Amino acid sequence: MKFGLFDDQNREYVITHPQTPWPWINYLGNDDFFSLISNTGGGYSFYKDPRFRRITRFRYNNVPIDDNGKYFYIKENDTVWSPGWKPVKTPLDGYQCRHGLGYSKITGEKNSLVAEVTYLVPLGVSAEIQRIKLQNRSTAKKNFKLFSFVEWNLWNAQDDMTNFQRNYSIGEVELEGAAIFHKTEYRERRNHYAFYAANQNPDGFDTDREAFVGLYNSYSDPDVVRQGKAKNSVAHGWSPIASHYFEIELQAGEEKELIFILGYIENDADNKWESKGVINKTKANQLIQKFSTSESVEQELQRLKIYWDELLSNFQIKSHDEKLDRMVNIWNQYQNMVTFNMSRSASYFESGIGRGMGFRDSNQDLIGFVHLIPEKAKERILDLAATQLEDGGAWHQYQPLTKKGNADIGGNFNDDPLWLILSTTIYIKETGDFSILNEMVPFNNDATKAQPLLEHLNRSFLHVTNNLGPHGLPLIGRADWNDCLNLNCFSNNPDESFQTTENKSGDVAESVMIAGMFVLYGNEYAKLLNFIGKTEEAQKAVKAVDEMKSSVEKYGWDGEWFLRAYDFFGKKVGSCENNEGKIFIESNGFCTMAGIGEEKGWTRQALLSVKKHLDCKYGIVLNNPAFTEYDISKGEISSYPEGYKENAGVFCHNNPWIMIGEVLEGNGEQAFEYYKKICPSYLEDISDLHRTEPYVYAQMIAGKDAWKPGEAKNSWLTGTAAWNFFAVSQYILGIQPDYDGLIVNPCIPKKWEGFRVTRRFRNTEYQIEVLNPDSVSKGVKMLVVDGLQIEGNKIPVQKKKVCQVKVIMG
Amino acid sequence: MKFGLFDDQNREYVITHPQTPWPWINYLGNDDFFSLISNTGGGYSFYKDPRFRRITRFRYNNVPIDDNGKYFYIKENDTVWSPGWKPVKTPLDGYQCRHGLGYSKITGEKNSLVAEVTYLVPLGVSAEIQRIKLQNRSTAKKNFKLFSFVEWNLWNAQDDMTNFQRNYSIGEVELEGAAIFHKTEYRERRNHYAFYAANQNPDGFDTDREAFVGLYNSYSDPDVVRQGKAKNSVAHGWSPIASHYFEIELQAGEEKELIFILGYIENDADNKWESKGVINKTKANQLIQKFSTSESVEQELQRLKIYWDELLSNFQIKSHDEKLDRMVNIWNQYQNMVTFNMSRSASYFESGIGRGMGFRDSNQDLIGFVHLIPEKAKERILDLAATQLEDGGAWHQYQPLTKKGNADIGGNFNDDPLWLILSTTIYIKETGDFSILNEMVPFNNDATKAQPLLEHLNRSFLHVTNNLGPHGLPLIGRADWNDCLNLNCFSNNPDESFQTTENKSGDVAESVMIAGMFVLYGNEYAKLLNFIGKTEEAQKAVKAVDEMKSSVEKYGWDGEWFLRAYDFFGKKVGSCENNEGKIFIESNGFCTMAGIGEEKGWTRQALLSVKKHLDCKYGIVLNNPAFTEYDISKGEISSYPEGYKENAGVFCHNNPWIMIGEVLEGNGEQAFEYYKKICPSYLEDISDLHRTEPYVYAQMIAGKDAWKPGEAKNSWLTGTAAWNFFAVSQYILGIQPDYDGLIVNPCIPKKWEGFRVTRRFRNTEYQIEVLNPDSVSKGVKMLVVDGLQIEGNKIPVQKKKVCQVKVIMG
Repeated sequence: MKFGLFDDQNREYVITHPQTPWPWINYLGNDDFFSLISNTGGGYSFYKDPRFRRITRFRYNNVPIDDNGKYFYIKENDTVWSPGWKPVKTPLDGYQCRHGLGYSKITGEKNSLVAEVTYLVPLGVSAEIQRIKLQNRSTAKKNFKLFSFVEWNLWNAQDDMTNFQRNYSIGEVELEGAAIFHKTEYRERRNHYAFYAANQNPDGFDTDREAFVGLYNSYSDPDVVRQGKAKNSVAHGWSPIASHYFEIELQAGEEKELIFILGYIENDADNKWESKGVINKTKANQLIQKFSTSESVEQELQRLKIYWDELLSNFQIKSHDEKLDRMVNIWNQYQNMVTFNMSRSASYFESGIGRGMGFRDSNQDLIGFVHLIPEKAKERILDLAATQLEDGGAWHQYQPLTKKGNADIGGNFNDDPLWLILSTTIYIKETGDFSILNEMVPFNNDATKAQPLLEHLNRSFLHVTNNLGPHGLPLIGRADWNDCLNLNCFSNNPDESFQTTENKSGDVAESVMIAGMFVLYGNEYAKLLNFIGKTEEAQKAVKAVDEMKSSVEKYGWDGEWFLRAYDFFGKKVGSCENNEGKIFIESNGFCTMAGIGEEKGWTRQALLSVKKHLDCKYGIVLNNPAFTEYDISKGEISSYPEGYKENAGVFCHNNPWIMIGEVLEGNGEQAFEYYKKICPSYLEDISDLHRTEPYVYAQMIAGKDAWKPGEAKNSWLTGTAAWNFFAVSQYILGIQPDYDGLIVNPCIPKKWEGFRVTRRFRNTEYQIEVLNPDSVSKGVKMLVVDGLQIEGNKIPVQKKKVCQVKVIMG
Repeated sequence: MKFGLFDDQNREYVITHPQTPWPWINYLGNDDFFSLISNTGGGYSFYKDPRFRRITRFRYNNVPIDDNGKYFYIKENDTVWSPGWKPVKTPLDGYQCRHGLGYSKITGEKNSLVAEVTYLVPLGVSAEIQRIKLQNRSTAKKNFKLFSFVEWNLWNAQDDMTNFQRNYSIGEVELEGAAIFHKTEYRERRNHYAFYAANQNPDGFDTDREAFVGLYNSYSDPDVVRQGKAKNSVAHGWSPIASHYFEIELQAGEEKELIFILGYIENDADNKWESKGVINKTKANQLIQKFSTSESVEQELQRLKIYWDELLSNFQIKSHDEKLDRMVNIWNQYQNMVTFNMSRSASYFESGIGRGMGFRDSNQDLIGFVHLIPEKAKERILDLAATQLEDGGAWHQYQPLTKKGNADIGGNFNDDPLWLILSTTIYIKETGDFSILNEMVPFNNDATKAQPLLEHLNRSFLHVTNNLGPHGLPLIGRADWNDCLNLNCFSNNPDESFQTTENKSGDVAESVMIAGMFVLYGNEYAKLLNFIGKTEEAQKAVKAVDEMKSSVEKYGWDGEWFLRAYDFFGKKVGSCENNEGKIFIESNGFCTMAGIGEEKGWTRQALLSVKKHLDCKYGIVLNNPAFTEYDISKGEISSYPEGYKENAGVFCHNNPWIMIGEVLEGNGEQAFEYYKKICPSYLEDISDLHRTEPYVYAQMIAGKDAWKPGEAKNSWLTGTAAWNFFAVSQYILGIQPDYDGLIVNPCIPKKWEGFRVTRRFRNTEYQIEVLNPDSVSKGVKMLVVDGLQIEGNKIPVQKKKVCQVKVIMG
């Protein structure tokens, strides 16, 4: 069952039923101010950091779900309704939500009154703009009331939901004209306040939640709305909110617009106050002034459109398959941007409390983002590298507000360092900017310990070779990519974390996945060294990689697939010798991508085993058989019910590793089949089962052993988006940047007749036409660049603005 | 305005309007299993630790407020209602909530159907029992549906509200007969599960929240109730709940009872499972069996009644003032028990997340509790002392589950150690059990460092003398009793804690309050040493106390009152030299109680200054004038809006210090006036302003500078209860245990003709009659014990069961 449709022309997903199987959300904002917004107007805003600078309040896992947002209430006679259906839930005569790139437009109609609300965060502005268009489509005059509503969070989202003995006493507001100022704690250490303003003076206002809603009422029936008149309440403590009240008259056919601005302002210490106790509103008033007209809002919408036009024009495909095209051209790239901005911090599943930017996460998110805004990718690489430790290890997360490593979580996730090699090499291949390697980057955020970035890559590399186990394989540390495979934490206390509790010495348990990563990214590192003329270092690196390859060949192969690991006791994990968890996806993905044992047929065999044991209708599950009971020597993975999350769920993040493996084997049919299984646009028709948004990836889909296979969870913030874009663009479509050119090497289903790609690469737009006259999966028999045939499949870097490329497969 | 009435006979507060100005709650449970329950059936349960063993889910600061509880839905034809009005909120024909001691009884009536629900946690049982009596008071047969409902918390309350990427995948239940088992995470490290059972097999059940409520519905209109039939849903992940469904027929006048049991079970590792994946239900079934009959529940109610009869009989007063009597005899003692059990951890203001047992808090809570169950008080003293550090300092809090010091908060609150002297001396005076001083008690929970408790008191004492500042006054450390007076934390970053951020050296800022404490409790320590024959040590202690007294006399007096402190710069705090915060209650309370400068008239003068500057209609405010802006050198106190919390709110905890001071001055009128101002039973008539329960103390009442003076916050969990009971029982009524007898030394308003007190003290019941024929405030001119006149005002310890005492004031 579908709940909407793709409008590819406008790059929007159009939701036509408010009661989606889960709130379907969008993200507003690209810089510092962000909003999450659901299809019914739910969601919240924050500035930079969803934990420390939460602006509006949102209650996760609430009943009803998603019951906090930026809401409008309309009261015409005795009928009260909201344009997005919620929170009032009065049945509407018309409803539509259009989630676009950086904006959302929600339209409701009741009794011939239409309210269209457009929400956006303009580029470079720390404010959310809401434009509400009200149109009387009836033939008679209408008089009605409009109430706006936001609920302030008291800034620190964790504190906001736990520390009531303080919080109920600190709320403070100010009012001026049509603006309501949330200045809680501004009197003390905060240099920031928020405001909610309208572009017209209202007929009333409320700032105290209890006055507005009533102590025992719901958001669906606030007391003020029920009474049809604002109370002009001024909050002192308890729960400050902001609500405007307008009495509106519309003649038949008449339309009226109102603009609301939810803004965040910082003042420096010397300019905090206008007079004692009165906040300095200069910057707020400038913003309010700036967005006071309909034209100004329209202009910002246009700027957003142009912004995305330009970004997305870096990679556009035209194929025979609209589902593929809309994902590649629009939604996958859009999600890449969002995951890059948010890391894993704030979604409708990530509460914005528990984590900052992940080292591993953000390095991977980069590979789907770098072609959009390479400058931001560069900054992120340097930020990440700056949290690296001198021994090459890394803090597992850092706080976006401070950019310092998070000591609560710590480090010792032994895959972490290698992802820095991936992100850096991918960045240089995209940009040709080798100068990044010379950037001086601190270790552990200590500027006195700065070294060139290249040395950071070296430390990453050495961190593996300096931490080898009994089989010459990399020690796993707390965990590798699979946070839930905890081989050195024997936890029997539910009050401790599986990850951060280390109670076993870490000098035995080894990860075959990291071994595969090391071969893959170690080779990339060597290739980079060679490319910049450091051939001696390159040779050393190749030698270490070859040794690792030997170790895997000796100790990492189980007969039909790659082992996953050796545990604390030196016993095999992911082996046919095990009863549960005989085979895992991660090591088979990485060892296959690294081509280990290819000459012996191991990569092919491993992929066949993956298909045989892990593939299911909804994607490739992480392991098989699922763990049916807790295994203290494996950790959290065995804590999940079968078929969910890391215990044999379809973990969409790693499915692309297998897709890439299949591509390397030339199996275009299988690679694309895997791609489609988890690609959301192909799942739109089963939205009732899939539940999460059909326009973005979810982290996990319940696997074959689950109670409800096919049900997705944890949408939006997942490395899945970046990896799938990487797999489909660079491997299936085969458009792959290299240090010295753009490789074109597609691997597609044989029946495809071809496709076109427009790819902007280092200031040249490559208009690539791929033809497949011989119905092959792989192989380029002719490459023509601006009419000139070229050997091989790599287009050298061009200097022209536009370059025509023809690729004949065969 | 009142919302109910006191039923002193039954020791119940009877709430007659469901829409109280704030949810009015009660506590069930005395041992390990606790429930909070509001007057509309809201609340939650936990086992021992409200953070780590939360059993049912509660959303704080929700809209509507207090919307999670143990609810019953009744559907008769198309009318759906709940006995406690919430969550359905259908107007009832009759409503009553009786909060009793350890139980609550909520009765609703609709269309001549009466539902009376009794909630209790039986003594020594880890389960909440709910008995629902349904009576058809109409003249016709009735057919209706009954649905029970609880929502499970996934055990760790912090994780439960933040970690959804995991939590939505782990929920698991089992069903057997009329029991629904919440076994989430039992498959892994948990040795405990919960269950919700009925004493009859239901006609259906639900265990999945979305199935029961519906994704977009509220608790007020669950889908299943709306449809009038259970869906028999089995939860897998998402949000497990437990609901029974009964189809009930009642003849005219017929009554029917059902019993529900919400239980918590622990199994040891060897007995976790009945068979693979099937939990061992033996203990649960025993409990279910045990409470399957109406008689068993009635019996537990009786046991509770007897339990409280006995406990409260340790102190009973009969005066001319029923408001005084009901507080002293029932509610103040009851609250003492609750604060002792909970410390500051779980109320409708304390979320059960942020804190464990406070060192300072629990030592003080003891002084209102020790006469109820001295054995428990002893255990608590030993637990607290075990977290003391070797230098005499203490962890500020410890976790009730582990009894280990909380490293996140740390120590260095320099008043902490002295409270151990208070609690220990009070315990010994109550019990005569000097053997506690010989108990071997670890330092920092390290058994190898155990020393006798007496040595802990010595370290407490020395911690003060070893940490003196430039004026010979005690260094304040992070803070003294006033957590918000932060003299060594110059915080300008809102993301850090005022308390735990120490960025200034702590060797200058001094606390005059701790100085007063040291004189008071140092003298108590010396008196104890003398009493046990350690006269040499006692002399040393007296010497140190005298030196402290000199220091206060030299540097602690401001002319009309005692200074509060010296700050980091050595400047006076709480002085007429200051513009704001000229005078504080704490130092004036303690220095007065310690009698410092009494001979110079300072104590009288200080009390007059308190009255002049701090007294207001609603009690004594903490400081004056309130801080109107943030003072970085004072810290959090200046962060609050004026009149709230530590910034000039009526902090009820310290009002008794002034009451005691007035008693020591012989001013019974003033002492009792102060007592009445904050005593909840005297505030019942202004419940609409006061907001919190009229049967228990709140931590804070908004002061004279506040926007809404008289509005109370943070009820139940506050040292206020213990201190007020201590003040009224030992100082105003003057019944004061001493090492070798029971002192009787009332200090009352002159117009009182007398009062009677029954006091059980060391196994003797003293039936004390106080007469005031001369209309004095203070002074005992005759003391007759069992007909025998005695010199002075101390009754020697008796060996009889009952002892008649007559006291003639004059």
